[in-house]
Amino acid sequence: MRKVLVIGIGAGNPEHMTVQAISGLNRADVLFIPDKGAKKNDLAELRRQICDRFVTNPKSRRVEFDVPVRAEPTSSYRSTVDDWHEAIAAIYEALIRDELPEDGCGAFLIWGDPSLYDSALRILERVRLRANVEFELDVMPGITAVQALAASHKMALNRIGDSFLVTTGRRLTEEGMPDNAGSTVVMLDGKCAFNTLSDKDLIIHWGAYLGTPDEIIISGRLGDVGAEIEKIREDARRSKGWIMDTYLLRKPGD
Amino acid sequence: MRKVLVIGIGAGNPEHMTVQAISGLNRADVLFIPDKGAKKNDLAELRRQICDRFVTNPKSRRVEFDVPVRAEPTSSYRSTVDDWHEAIAAIYEALIRDELPEDGCGAFLIWGDPSLYDSALRILERVRLRANVEFELDVMPGITAVQALAASHKMALNRIGDSFLVTTGRRLTEEGMPDNAGSTVVMLDGKCAFNTLSDKDLIIHWGAYLGTPDEIIISGRLGDVGAEIEKIREDARRSKGWIMDTYLLRKPGD
Repeated sequence: MRKVLVIGIGAGNPEHMTVQAISGLNRADVLFIPDKGAKKNDLAELRRQICDRFVTNPKSRRVEFDVPVRAEPTSSYRSTVDDWHEAIAAIYEALIRDELPEDGCGAFLIWGDPSLYDSALRILERVRLRANVEFELDVMPGITAVQALAASHKMALNRIGDSFLVTTGRRLTEEGMPDNAGSTVVMLDGKCAFNTLSDKDLIIHWGAYLGTPDEIIISGRLGDVGAEIEKIREDARRSKGWIMDTYLLRKPGD
Repeated sequence: MRKVLVIGIGAGNPEHMTVQAISGLNRADVLFIPDKGAKKNDLAELRRQICDRFVTNPKSRRVEFDVPVRAEPTSSYRSTVDDWHEAIAAIYEALIRDELPEDGCGAFLIWGDPSLYDSALRILERVRLRANVEFELDVMPGITAVQALAASHKMALNRIGDSFLVTTGRRLTEEGMPDNAGSTVVMLDGKCAFNTLSDKDLIIHWGAYLGTPDEIIISGRLGDVGAEIEKIREDARRSKGWIMDTYLLRKPGD
């Protein structure tokens, strides 16, 4: 039976690779690398560095593949994602069937952790349901940008005994700060959704390029640093051509 | 200046140690080990195994210390925790002052990740505010039980584009399932709070001793597996003398 590993490789700091992830990279005959000719060249380069540093298996091959671009959401965000995932599932299926021998092992390298705002596991479930190729699946967790954010700010994500919400920029804009959690972690926010909030006394802990040499972190009262973060974020995005960032919002006090 | 490292060592699988955490263990002159004569002997043994496997610095010393027992919460949960943390802060302060030379480096080893339901960072902030000893702080993230849970169940924590709440057993009992998140991750639940929920159609993904050879995982409809999990949990707790578990609850569908 073919074996597929889904390996979390951390959010950008190669030192965040786990012992298990390093073994996984070396157990694989084939490393599947998305974004052939990617625009985010720094990220592709970073992934290459991780492979170069940790892959010692001389039989390991790298297979690059194109990821289709997601259509702009029209009526339903979900159905757009659905079509997109089905297209990627066809690609994954072909990779597993064509690039792996019947007893072979292939690995998908996932930024951060496969369990957090990543679709590889859902797409592989689609491949399984398509039933054209059989495989065993193994998942290896990785350090997420959220954990890198907390480590760089030397803070906990939760207050004592309190809950926290992990959400997206889109939802923060639509729903505002939750009533049932003292802290909110926001991911996938391309539009500085924090600046749409009316409560300017919230505390924000923000970070971009977390864990990399280009890391930027800023924290403070939203009313004091919100505009500054937006400006620094935009300048960095323009100068590097891309940005990945995340942040935590918390009501003041404690 | 003294240096203090707070190192996430994962939730129980030594293979979840990161390259950074391993370097950190070896940079430290002193490893501070809590729970002198701990009851949870398996955990103490597991931590010893991690140190034995990864610490190669011959000058490294281990210093065990007692952690005071938290008083039973009375009127205010927060003030009980407050007293308890202040007592631990005094212990941390003494360890840093007495066990480290002025240019020395000490490390606190934290199960999981220091950012998730762990108080070491808050307690070290108290030590800093007490202003009796100066130190630099460095935080290294680790794989959490939540990530180990998701990896073992081969699932994502969030649904597509959806948010999730991370909360405690206490809060789940008091507040029920949130309206603003499709998924809820529950930690620190000693009482199977999931069985207090009225919606028996919820899907639960549960795991105990995650990442260790004793790992148990169960998933299914709450009405079908809730009682079974409670029984298996209690049997395991009795036979081993301790248990650590966590779970994800999700409304059915998708």
